[in-house]
Amino acid sequence: MPSTSNPIALGIVGVGKIVRDQHLPALAGNDNYRLIAVASRHGKVDGIANFPSIEAMLEAVPTLEAVSLCMPPQARYTAARAALDAGKHVFLEKPPGATVSEVEDLRRLAVTKGVSLFASWHSRYAPAVEAARSFLASTQIHAASIVWKEDVRRWHPNQDWIWQAGGLGVFDPGINALSIATHIFPAMFITGATLEFPENRAAPIAAAIDFRTAQDLAVSADFDWRQTGPQSWDIFAETDRGQMALSGGGAKLVVDGHVVHQENEAEYPALYRRFAEIVRSGTSDVDLAPLQHVADAFMLGKRRTVEAFID
Amino acid sequence: MPSTSNPIALGIVGVGKIVRDQHLPALAGNDNYRLIAVASRHGKVDGIANFPSIEAMLEAVPTLEAVSLCMPPQARYTAARAALDAGKHVFLEKPPGATVSEVEDLRRLAVTKGVSLFASWHSRYAPAVEAARSFLASTQIHAASIVWKEDVRRWHPNQDWIWQAGGLGVFDPGINALSIATHIFPAMFITGATLEFPENRAAPIAAAIDFRTAQDLAVSADFDWRQTGPQSWDIFAETDRGQMALSGGGAKLVVDGHVVHQENEAEYPALYRRFAEIVRSGTSDVDLAPLQHVADAFMLGKRRTVEAFID
Repeated sequence: MPSTSNPIALGIVGVGKIVRDQHLPALAGNDNYRLIAVASRHGKVDGIANFPSIEAMLEAVPTLEAVSLCMPPQARYTAARAALDAGKHVFLEKPPGATVSEVEDLRRLAVTKGVSLFASWHSRYAPAVEAARSFLASTQIHAASIVWKEDVRRWHPNQDWIWQAGGLGVFDPGINALSIATHIFPAMFITGATLEFPENRAAPIAAAIDFRTAQDLAVSADFDWRQTGPQSWDIFAETDRGQMALSGGGAKLVVDGHVVHQENEAEYPALYRRFAEIVRSGTSDVDLAPLQHVADAFMLGKRRTVEAFID
Repeated sequence: MPSTSNPIALGIVGVGKIVRDQHLPALAGNDNYRLIAVASRHGKVDGIANFPSIEAMLEAVPTLEAVSLCMPPQARYTAARAALDAGKHVFLEKPPGATVSEVEDLRRLAVTKGVSLFASWHSRYAPAVEAARSFLASTQIHAASIVWKEDVRRWHPNQDWIWQAGGLGVFDPGINALSIATHIFPAMFITGATLEFPENRAAPIAAAIDFRTAQDLAVSADFDWRQTGPQSWDIFAETDRGQMALSGGGAKLVVDGHVVHQENEAEYPALYRRFAEIVRSGTSDVDLAPLQHVADAFMLGKRRTVEAFID
């Protein structure tokens, strides 16, 4: 286990929307990190060293101790291998890879190298998620549903990779819902799914999924990228203690009409606190359940072809 | 751990082609088992108790100690749950389930119940597979390829379930190749795939898959169900010790033109020996790597629509 300095010398790979919107502001407010380099084909960050590739960055900045990998999932494994081989701690944006098996390989490699690997799921760190988990653990759940409907044109404008094979389509936001559901509900598995593919795209624009648990709880999920107007990121449960609604992507918990927990979203600051924690304690945090469900949905699901999607 | 008698009192669920062709003959030659009941919607076996469902069989024959589940994978979980809940050891035909997550659930349940769960992969027990594994462990592999091409009309005549969502299509035989490949090669993961779906079917008729390993070995797989004439079930490797060909579905190993191992196929007798072994030792044997690769291929793969398939 290499010792890590304080603050941790960090690099970021893949400077796009999520890095500018979330990673840079979260790091600006966290004394645990010193961002010293970025690598990106297109994006630049002022005031620090910029490189065209992770390989160039790793070679030029040997003092790097950790890297955050924020490129599309199809390219994440190769970068993660390079970073782990160089003995760096690795923070993986979600989804952690293009396949479950490749992330299992990274997990083995991190153990071999004695460094920390973090498969981050930002929605799991939404402010009311822990309150929802505690509430559900205190009662009997009779039925549950996930409604995750948003406007892809608003949230992923012209992001071509997301529509390509391996880009996951509507499962890119849907996996956020699954990262919460797999944290607050007992272990689930898919019993049926229907995936809707636009006739001109290689990834689904909508999905309806049925889960059950070993306790025979039925959980339905409805993912749709064609939602204009109000956006829905909600998880509902009927319980012995009343109806639970975890809304706003995990920001607000309401039970039987009463607000139990509401707080401003601060997911990425929490993610970076967690990453520092596992680096300091020499552990890893790699839960593949959300990605496993997506792979299972693709394997088991029926496919329907729907109207072409033009960005 | 319930003690198990000798011979083990066994039931079979789902009496179709694979049971008549393989399970019944293998059991007839194995003193470890006493087949006392079957459950099937359509099939019957003479001379023992027949039931319309696993629930009816479990209720009527409490002396059953183990069950083999041979119905299509879409229905396997519910039957396995019923059997495990009743404290029976369970033999799962391949693939062990319709999703990876549901088999993980069964694995947890088997531990809770103190019974054995066997996710069987019959091709892994083909006679020359262990010789191939030993040979590959003794040398450096430079490249490998899997060619699994057969005539679906010959091997799966009018099997509707295999073409439905969750029936896996050409991955039904392809997973046999993967069960060998994951046993003889280092851990692999998929880097790209193309799946061909007949325009009138919900499952693929062909697939081309690229794998790599952590050691950067490239392994290609070519699955096709449209092969008339000679059938191909071959795995090739270029090595420091020459070209290896494992052919006939794992029956024959040839290195540089010399036959190293050739033996008549006896996969199911070996499977039932293995099942008795894990029951006697109170362990389970559940390797999900082959099914994981299929799920990953569906998630990551490009889809192409091809000519309709009429049985």
